[in-house]
Amino acid sequence: MRQTLVIRSAITSVLLTLRPVRARLNMVKTKKFILAKHFQGEPKESDLQLVEEELPPLKDGEILCEAVWLSVDPYMRPYTARLPTGITMIGSQVGKIIESRNKGFPVGKYVLGYLGWQTKTIHNPQQPSSSTMAPTYLLPDFGELPLSLALGVLGMPGNTAYFGFLEICQPKAGEVVVVSGAAGAVGSLVGQIARIKGCKVIGFAGSDDKVRWLKDDLHFDAAYNYKKTDVDTALKEAAPNGVDCYFDNVGGVMSSTVLSHMNPRGRISVCGSISSYNADAKQLPSAPVVQPSLVFKELKMEGFIVHRWLDRWMEGIHQMKDWVKNKELVYRETVTEGFENMPKAFIGMLRGENTGKAVVKA
Amino acid sequence: MRQTLVIRSAITSVLLTLRPVRARLNMVKTKKFILAKHFQGEPKESDLQLVEEELPPLKDGEILCEAVWLSVDPYMRPYTARLPTGITMIGSQVGKIIESRNKGFPVGKYVLGYLGWQTKTIHNPQQPSSSTMAPTYLLPDFGELPLSLALGVLGMPGNTAYFGFLEICQPKAGEVVVVSGAAGAVGSLVGQIARIKGCKVIGFAGSDDKVRWLKDDLHFDAAYNYKKTDVDTALKEAAPNGVDCYFDNVGGVMSSTVLSHMNPRGRISVCGSISSYNADAKQLPSAPVVQPSLVFKELKMEGFIVHRWLDRWMEGIHQMKDWVKNKELVYRETVTEGFENMPKAFIGMLRGENTGKAVVKA
Repeated sequence: MRQTLVIRSAITSVLLTLRPVRARLNMVKTKKFILAKHFQGEPKESDLQLVEEELPPLKDGEILCEAVWLSVDPYMRPYTARLPTGITMIGSQVGKIIESRNKGFPVGKYVLGYLGWQTKTIHNPQQPSSSTMAPTYLLPDFGELPLSLALGVLGMPGNTAYFGFLEICQPKAGEVVVVSGAAGAVGSLVGQIARIKGCKVIGFAGSDDKVRWLKDDLHFDAAYNYKKTDVDTALKEAAPNGVDCYFDNVGGVMSSTVLSHMNPRGRISVCGSISSYNADAKQLPSAPVVQPSLVFKELKMEGFIVHRWLDRWMEGIHQMKDWVKNKELVYRETVTEGFENMPKAFIGMLRGENTGKAVVKA
Repeated sequence: MRQTLVIRSAITSVLLTLRPVRARLNMVKTKKFILAKHFQGEPKESDLQLVEEELPPLKDGEILCEAVWLSVDPYMRPYTARLPTGITMIGSQVGKIIESRNKGFPVGKYVLGYLGWQTKTIHNPQQPSSSTMAPTYLLPDFGELPLSLALGVLGMPGNTAYFGFLEICQPKAGEVVVVSGAAGAVGSLVGQIARIKGCKVIGFAGSDDKVRWLKDDLHFDAAYNYKKTDVDTALKEAAPNGVDCYFDNVGGVMSSTVLSHMNPRGRISVCGSISSYNADAKQLPSAPVVQPSLVFKELKMEGFIVHRWLDRWMEGIHQMKDWVKNKELVYRETVTEGFENMPKAFIGMLRGENTGKAVVKA
């Protein structure tokens, strides 16, 4: 009896040893971009280094995801300044689960997660790492809509527009709303939400094509190419009675000008500051001071990160999905093909080359 | 009978005619400062012209006030830019009622009113004019405290500190509060209210004497002469764990630096922007952009004009009076003697020559 026990224990131990060996035989490789150098000024492709790595076997609770769609977003530029070099470049992706030791995340399902710029990732959805900006979640049913929308209108940018505009600007029907970066992933949605809420919407974007899109397809009341029309002149024309809400993706000089056109008790939602993202955080560019506008017109200006509304996340996704399905809300994606082109897509997005959401098809 | 009526009517008409004549015999003269030229850069004494005027007799509802204490405040500089030349220079005063045709405002009582820079004023407290920024009111009983406090700690600046700090910054005990213009009429009170509420208080002021006053008499936890100590260095020393609330009287470069030291979800109450008051509103000075701090730290920044709390005005006055009487709150006044010296007092105040509230004794 005692001997039997010993034999059983030996067998168990052989089996336990075999398990990782079996996984190793079935080796998984990933490609990833490493932050090789901190960005200085505009990011260069050489700041990001493409490497291959072998992945270890899964532990209990882990899943292996294969990137299907990857995101490039403005926040990546300033956020990396605070992170060490050598890390996998940060970012979210739509991943397909191709192996799983987590019952809640079965093989074949799709997740949205901050898995970084890599093609295959081992990840425990219940154990977020420091680069996990929000919990990984299984995508809800998108019906016939493409999965890439989980990175755009039905994901972080969509909720950024939905909560960041409605909660901070508290727009009322009939009010005048200005959006900067209006043809971007977030701005293009904010303008349309503002119209759905009965506001008059004025957008600023960086090309004539974008302006045409805003006016013709998104039905903005007015839109301007800020590279051709000075913002002060544009607002005198489009908002002769002043601006009530400003959704700001850009910051800097443009924003100082918009603030000078605001009405008493106006609200400013500061979503981004892309005009200064390529600057050194210790040597930010200057712009005309905003305090006089704030005081004399009692303006309220608030910055936000969308994850403050994590507890209402699916409310935003479902509302945006309904608007998309009802054709009340139009979206556009600028798709770059190939994981290897992520740096190009990122740099292009920071230059404003995208219309709508910039995504990469792995 | 018919003849008698005619005679009576004639007598009445003579009496009615006599009334204004009698008033005219008892002529009242006022001295006042006229805005002769719009200020350009720093105000010059010659921009304000001292004139004498005869006052008409009182109409029903009117009172005649004699200025006892007059106020010079920073807001006067930017506000006059929007007003036409030729107006009586705007401002509040403590006036003694020396003649009255208004039962609610009897002779001998004192009022606080926006009566402008003049020694004697005819005024109907129920009919505010366009330059009346808030309704005229009878001073409550100040006990042994001087009436001049109605222009400072027990008036607009006191309520500016009380409501503007507590309502907008929503400070919690243990938080770190920074005050710019800390030795001024409002800033000196904000710092003390913050201490009463259990916060750690750091002040910036423009002279060593002011800094000594803040530390020795007002018990600020730290205070710096911003002309000698760079704000970034000061905050690294005094607020190594960051700043939670910022009460801003100054704006501009200093404020951009303070914002860069703020903690996530920090609150900024923008009370004034004195660093740019002498600038042309169309050519404001520039400062490092504030949007990156607002976004990445989700800061909330709100400008205000104290009159939004008019319905709670006496709550503020009574609370401040209690704190003054209990010696929990110290105040200082910088007194200029003589109505004729109002322009000097005004220019000096804008230069920061005052400590605490700048007032003029008529």
